[in-house]
Amino acid sequence: MKFRRSERLIDMTQYLLEHPNQLVPLTFFAERYSSAKSSISEDLSLIKDTFEKREIGTLKTVAGAAGGVQFFVKVGQEEARQIVQELCDLIANPDRLLPGGYLYLTDIIGNPSIVQKVGRMIASVYAYAKIDVVVTVATKGIPLAYAVASQLNTPVIIVRHDSKVTEGPTVSINYVSGSAKRIQTMVLSKRSLAEGSNVLIVDDFMKAGGTITGMISLLEEFKANVAGIAVLVESERQEDRLVDHYISLVQLSDVNVKEKTISVHEGNYFLQGNE
Amino acid sequence: MKFRRSERLIDMTQYLLEHPNQLVPLTFFAERYSSAKSSISEDLSLIKDTFEKREIGTLKTVAGAAGGVQFFVKVGQEEARQIVQELCDLIANPDRLLPGGYLYLTDIIGNPSIVQKVGRMIASVYAYAKIDVVVTVATKGIPLAYAVASQLNTPVIIVRHDSKVTEGPTVSINYVSGSAKRIQTMVLSKRSLAEGSNVLIVDDFMKAGGTITGMISLLEEFKANVAGIAVLVESERQEDRLVDHYISLVQLSDVNVKEKTISVHEGNYFLQGNE
Repeated sequence: MKFRRSERLIDMTQYLLEHPNQLVPLTFFAERYSSAKSSISEDLSLIKDTFEKREIGTLKTVAGAAGGVQFFVKVGQEEARQIVQELCDLIANPDRLLPGGYLYLTDIIGNPSIVQKVGRMIASVYAYAKIDVVVTVATKGIPLAYAVASQLNTPVIIVRHDSKVTEGPTVSINYVSGSAKRIQTMVLSKRSLAEGSNVLIVDDFMKAGGTITGMISLLEEFKANVAGIAVLVESERQEDRLVDHYISLVQLSDVNVKEKTISVHEGNYFLQGNE
Repeated sequence: MKFRRSERLIDMTQYLLEHPNQLVPLTFFAERYSSAKSSISEDLSLIKDTFEKREIGTLKTVAGAAGGVQFFVKVGQEEARQIVQELCDLIANPDRLLPGGYLYLTDIIGNPSIVQKVGRMIASVYAYAKIDVVVTVATKGIPLAYAVASQLNTPVIIVRHDSKVTEGPTVSINYVSGSAKRIQTMVLSKRSLAEGSNVLIVDDFMKAGGTITGMISLLEEFKANVAGIAVLVESERQEDRLVDHYISLVQLSDVNVKEKTISVHEGNYFLQGNE
């Protein structure tokens, strides 16, 4: 089966997008299309140029026998601002207000297209951080954790509040939830995380940060290194925030149940030099 | 900004893959690249040919003023068999055996690359079924549900076993879990699902089918139409199976704790005429 350049470009684009952060040897493509390595290199430089121009991501080429090409996702500044603006507009809708000042966000987290955009934004920041595993807590953080992990080519592990027989032996800790000051339990399957892993924590919402502090304590039991913390929404309560370094896409500054207003603006994402 | 054909092909491939099941007007691409519609049509036919040759999916063109092009995912028979074989090999590893004959599958469900492949396989079957929403139950089914939904361009809704304040008003039912014969509760946020929706149920594991029967009962309260049921793994216990029509990728036929053997083979996926 012979491939023309147009066919190679289409198929390679698809292949690279589906294998982010993976080193693909040039010989793989050369054999796949029965083409010379020099043609493959030309194709890759066309793909790289287009990916960079359209802010889809970038390709890095590693020379030598063990070399190849690697796709890294990158969300451009303009697209990132559009995504955050879209999120702010969605969240500011007063229909989201629930009794007690809680917000209904289930539909936003239930939209795979939004979740994937947010996942790409977070993955852009940590694309070169050599993350081994993305960790989240059941259940609302799960979709976002997968969206990030699929771009970073890492597994996801899920911390639970209860232990299940299908998890095998577990390690558990007790922690104090930051806002409600209740003692809660967190459990992680013993065999799910190798000691010394480089970990990115992802969650949907951070209030005082008690849950994330709990996760950090639990991860210490596995001698993990927390390389980053990323949340979709943080609520503005910095005076008693338990977590220091994190990125957030959206910040809730004021939820007024009486007036039925929700004040929301962009998080610290753009302050991190993520350009 | 002018685009050459090679650049258009790369960017359109990326755009279409990222917007499955969405009708994209040709004028959108014509404006995006300042190109004539005739050039766009030629590009699309090159992409369609390559997608079909490589079994990535297909493009459908809808003529007329409201027309455009739509990408549908399609996993080829050969790739599907490879994926199922890979799953069987992974699952047959006796290290997965837990006390009580349970299997540790957390690492498989925690691998976004595997989950996405399985999601594409399931989405291939329901690509033309006009699914409105993918429904799953917390927590193990969530990653797979998102992988399917992102290919079908639908939201995901998650049935829970407990009700959370952030879900707003809920509808709940009691059901009898098929294997343990225990009475359990299932809860779904009232505003998460519109009446009369066309629903695809996705879960990771089906034993007797009690959980899925419970979901069907709960969905009846929303006057939903269950258009399909898909599970990653089913255990072979057909004599007391509560659910009739479903697709499974993998079937567990025998788990022997004493002999430390797990017998696993392909599910009914290939019996459905999914070619």
